[in-house]
Amino acid sequence: MKCLIALLLCVVCSLPAWSEEGMWTLDNPPIKAMQRDIGWAPGAPWLEKTMRSAARIAGGCSASFVSKNGLVLTNHHCVATCVEQLSSKGQDFLKAGFLAQQVSDEKQCPAMEINRLEKITDVTKEVKAATAKLTGTAFTLAQNAAKAKITSACVGNEGAKVRCDVVDLYRGGQYKLYRYHRFQDVRLAFAPENAMASFGGDPDNFNFPRFDLDMALIRVYEDGKPAQTGDFFPFNTTGPVADEPVFVAGHPGRTERELTVAQLEFVRDYTLIDRLLNTAEYRGVLTQYRSAGGEAERIAARTLFNTENSYKVQRGQLLALSDAGHLQRKRAEEEALRKFVASRPELAKTTLGAWDAIARAVKVHREMYQEMVQIENGRAFESRYFTMARTLVRGAAERAKANADRLPEFNDNKLPEVEARLFSGAPIYPEFETLKTTYGLTKMRERLGADSPLVKKVLGEKSPQQLADSLVAGTKLTDREVRRALWNGGAAAIAKSDDAFIRLAVAIDTDARELRARYEREVEAVIQKNSELIAQARFAQTGDSAYPDATFTLRLSYGRIKGWEKSGKVVAPFTDFAGAFERATGNDPYALPASWLSSKDRLNLKTHFNQSSTHDIIGGNSGSPMINRQGEVVGLVFDGNIHSLSGAYWYDKVLNRAVSVNSAGMLEALDKIYGAKSLVAELRGL
Amino acid sequence: MKCLIALLLCVVCSLPAWSEEGMWTLDNPPIKAMQRDIGWAPGAPWLEKTMRSAARIAGGCSASFVSKNGLVLTNHHCVATCVEQLSSKGQDFLKAGFLAQQVSDEKQCPAMEINRLEKITDVTKEVKAATAKLTGTAFTLAQNAAKAKITSACVGNEGAKVRCDVVDLYRGGQYKLYRYHRFQDVRLAFAPENAMASFGGDPDNFNFPRFDLDMALIRVYEDGKPAQTGDFFPFNTTGPVADEPVFVAGHPGRTERELTVAQLEFVRDYTLIDRLLNTAEYRGVLTQYRSAGGEAERIAARTLFNTENSYKVQRGQLLALSDAGHLQRKRAEEEALRKFVASRPELAKTTLGAWDAIARAVKVHREMYQEMVQIENGRAFESRYFTMARTLVRGAAERAKANADRLPEFNDNKLPEVEARLFSGAPIYPEFETLKTTYGLTKMRERLGADSPLVKKVLGEKSPQQLADSLVAGTKLTDREVRRALWNGGAAAIAKSDDAFIRLAVAIDTDARELRARYEREVEAVIQKNSELIAQARFAQTGDSAYPDATFTLRLSYGRIKGWEKSGKVVAPFTDFAGAFERATGNDPYALPASWLSSKDRLNLKTHFNQSSTHDIIGGNSGSPMINRQGEVVGLVFDGNIHSLSGAYWYDKVLNRAVSVNSAGMLEALDKIYGAKSLVAELRGL
Repeated sequence: MKCLIALLLCVVCSLPAWSEEGMWTLDNPPIKAMQRDIGWAPGAPWLEKTMRSAARIAGGCSASFVSKNGLVLTNHHCVATCVEQLSSKGQDFLKAGFLAQQVSDEKQCPAMEINRLEKITDVTKEVKAATAKLTGTAFTLAQNAAKAKITSACVGNEGAKVRCDVVDLYRGGQYKLYRYHRFQDVRLAFAPENAMASFGGDPDNFNFPRFDLDMALIRVYEDGKPAQTGDFFPFNTTGPVADEPVFVAGHPGRTERELTVAQLEFVRDYTLIDRLLNTAEYRGVLTQYRSAGGEAERIAARTLFNTENSYKVQRGQLLALSDAGHLQRKRAEEEALRKFVASRPELAKTTLGAWDAIARAVKVHREMYQEMVQIENGRAFESRYFTMARTLVRGAAERAKANADRLPEFNDNKLPEVEARLFSGAPIYPEFETLKTTYGLTKMRERLGADSPLVKKVLGEKSPQQLADSLVAGTKLTDREVRRALWNGGAAAIAKSDDAFIRLAVAIDTDARELRARYEREVEAVIQKNSELIAQARFAQTGDSAYPDATFTLRLSYGRIKGWEKSGKVVAPFTDFAGAFERATGNDPYALPASWLSSKDRLNLKTHFNQSSTHDIIGGNSGSPMINRQGEVVGLVFDGNIHSLSGAYWYDKVLNRAVSVNSAGMLEALDKIYGAKSLVAELRGL
Repeated sequence: MKCLIALLLCVVCSLPAWSEEGMWTLDNPPIKAMQRDIGWAPGAPWLEKTMRSAARIAGGCSASFVSKNGLVLTNHHCVATCVEQLSSKGQDFLKAGFLAQQVSDEKQCPAMEINRLEKITDVTKEVKAATAKLTGTAFTLAQNAAKAKITSACVGNEGAKVRCDVVDLYRGGQYKLYRYHRFQDVRLAFAPENAMASFGGDPDNFNFPRFDLDMALIRVYEDGKPAQTGDFFPFNTTGPVADEPVFVAGHPGRTERELTVAQLEFVRDYTLIDRLLNTAEYRGVLTQYRSAGGEAERIAARTLFNTENSYKVQRGQLLALSDAGHLQRKRAEEEALRKFVASRPELAKTTLGAWDAIARAVKVHREMYQEMVQIENGRAFESRYFTMARTLVRGAAERAKANADRLPEFNDNKLPEVEARLFSGAPIYPEFETLKTTYGLTKMRERLGADSPLVKKVLGEKSPQQLADSLVAGTKLTDREVRRALWNGGAAAIAKSDDAFIRLAVAIDTDARELRARYEREVEAVIQKNSELIAQARFAQTGDSAYPDATFTLRLSYGRIKGWEKSGKVVAPFTDFAGAFERATGNDPYALPASWLSSKDRLNLKTHFNQSSTHDIIGGNSGSPMINRQGEVVGLVFDGNIHSLSGAYWYDKVLNRAVSVNSAGMLEALDKIYGAKSLVAELRGL
């Protein structure tokens, strides 16, 4: 009996998910755990409707359909780039906000793509068959080709409206084909003032209590008309109550919970610090640039916001990984899995060496990390011009090849998004691009050293500032017709071009591709192949009662509306409108906009504004709908608390909280502050 | 026999110093190790003369007397603040360099103090007797009082010319009284162009091969005349040869080699990253500020240089601490010492708990670290105005007390330096102070959080920028007569002052002092007391064949002129003038100044320029003389290689190298490029 209890305890211990933990795929919801933890679990129709009502912004956010006429709810910070791009010197929608009183006033975003998931198919067998017994370059090429073939067949001739991606789940434990409806005509309907969307600014980011109207409404169009999108989440007008079981259906971007200890230590000791230092210094440059005010302030606003956000995320992650206790738990889990593998002779033969193989690949990665980051990943060439030049140069070479032989980012299923970004009419500010280029080149020299052959090849005898000046002076890529001509002209046009950024992208392309090839061969393929083996072993140990690491695909998190307690301090789950007025100082970032100040008397100040909940989310979940058991929107996820930043590596049920805008709060503001009569009616289904 | 060998091996293992390792006090040179490692060791007269010929710049550098008329050799970067302060909009000596053709042309540095060590006395007994059986606040106060009493007696009535400090060696294992001759009238004789002093700029900093004329000549005066200083190091005109045994007599600032593993982990996981991130972001702000060119470039130059230097040092230190192997060795050493202690019942009774007590103090430190750093250490108030205001406010309160009861930085022996800094005529640029203040306040809010009562007390409803603007607009501390009046007026003048920075310093003084008191009581005193116990245990284990951690006091390092080899790449120990011309691109930071370009034909291009050697040095050693067995200057230490940055925690004989300017190279440049005829004659003893 004692023995049995010990065994049972052990099974419980090795269950990877804590209560309320997990970002679950919709084809494998944790029904039993949900019943156990919140006393309710969805059936197939609920899941189906949720899948078709949720949405993804291809650039990196979540969203949801909130009317049958293609109205989409997401965060302000998810559309802020569009808002900035629609702005001009005379008309700053970031500052002033934007409201289309009628559908015909809605403004098209220069480059935004919305995806709605329609179908998930298991393609594990096909992908694994293609790579069986292969290693290194052959493994990578075969896998790319297999995926290209599968997605091509899935898209067929409907590339403009259908998007198909093969998704690696469980780090290669499973491959699934995700088929999406693709919307590329997206228009802005409502955005509040930035001061209200991110009230409290960087100081309050990832904090709670919070008072942010971080919402926006956009609409998808087809054939020039609002798309008739069918399924959607209706708005709940009162919002959730404390402890209510609710759900988040969003697209978490990336977690690292399946990494081996060797990988986590590499992140902790090297890559995260390297990125963080870069972010910190860049933030300083941007802050000072922006302090000049006026146009500089407007131009750099979004870049600074994103940089500050990254800084806080990376800092939180580093603090999490520096927590010896959590890493020790990871180490114990890994040790237990290795022992499990060792105890099964068949499994041991294939898999026992997997951890050491990954550790060796990590060493290679460490050795080549800086060159890879600077030259192939392009950190050295931080500027929109270079990004476009790289796309044009590589696009010309890759599109000349058969789909299955291309770099995956130029597969047919990716081209509509690539082209939308490349031909976007978003304004480009040469002075700002010079600043970014100078920064990137300076840091490249610092990280690789002045004597690096790659640095000498890029800089020659020029200083970073001189090179940046001459690059920007020597480019015509600001003009999108020039970009279009180069794209359409292919390799011949590239060869003839004397554009300075095109020539730079050409000049370092061989080196960059060689770095990438080595990385794919000696790092990525090794890690991928051995992670698959570890994932299989984990399946053998626990079954798929585990959830896969986040992959920017649709996931369901379940939990409750709940605050938390730390060091004796209790944080309540709701804030209200009154709190926003109390927190306001009149000075940035605690200045309420005029619209709020003048509406105060009309508001029900007790309306819930923001709320905290136990959902397991991460970056990419921004804009996720929070829904109740009836499938109604009760909130809009826009952030996590500071403790949620450890969520990249593990879920901490005690402290990790998601932060969302309350549905009643959104309606109150839309109605009484912004007077968005027709949008309110549409949200209320009137 | 086997047993005896094992014992001997063990003794060798626990010898803390590697061959050529160590920063040795001049009263305890490692005679045997020197004989063993370099086949020569100094006698008492050599050591005595070296002590009296070496010098310290109180602000944080090393130097040496190089003529009987008070001429002092140090690095350009050690006097660059003076050079900047002597510059003005029309006359930029940092850029153009400075040469006094005659003694009467020498220019007084606004605030520089030179110290020459005259005597070392052991005061361990007195200090320990004063603190016996005390803990916490009582321990700190008693120790401060004992030190104040000892230094007062040492200085007597000669405060203007004598400086006495009680130095904690071996982290409290020994206390020694260092008596210095103090020189406060210091004048600039020669400084090359900054472009030549730090040729290669930040990219080449801490790298080798190197081509920097990082030298300057200053002179100490007494009664308005060049001081007759007696002992000095004559210049060797040919420089050292490869492998020659040579010596560095300098003032290493601070090492952390005696820290416990708990302390090192705290540095690795928290404090170093925190400082580094602050340095990185500040660097970004300064870089962008400076990029405006003109006056901004000149004003921010030194601050940016120092910030970039700190960045590289801190990054190197963090990489060193992230090296699991080295930390493992530390852990093993600590374990061995703990076992040694456990094996001696008497020692165990007093000392076995010391490591855990320190670990607990580290936890308290972690908890209060940010508030301490921001408010008491003043990182939140990054500006010269606040530094002066804090000195005035605390100085008024402290000087009213008996010497033994004061905060140590206001003891009588410190006041001459405090006053020299406070009344310095160095220019202050309000716009630049606003920038720094804004930065400091912004980061204070970020690190402590917008809801911290301390942050609310400082900022009120203002934004950091607003507060900085109003502080700088509301201060008259730019005027040194105002500072003098406040200093002389004491507490009454402070109470009456409506100066904005004075009021800020007053407003947070109680909080700041409370933080300091808690830190001293719960962190510093605990660590000090238990480090003493550990130091005693180490003495019992190894005797004082170990050297103490660096304390910015005179130390001797011995070693050889030597390059190194890494990953199959051999680095030779010398560079020459030809190499500088080869490395030059004409663009900053690789632009040779006009003086060099026009002198090229006159130069012996084979003259050795910079050199690498095995000496164990660290920050503070900048400006140290490198001397040969005859006591002649053969080099001027100005840097270490990149591997030397791990020297904060351990010495790596294989890779750690000091970098110095060759004596023949200095003479060649002074003579043929700068035409410094009379200085060359003085250095040659003609």
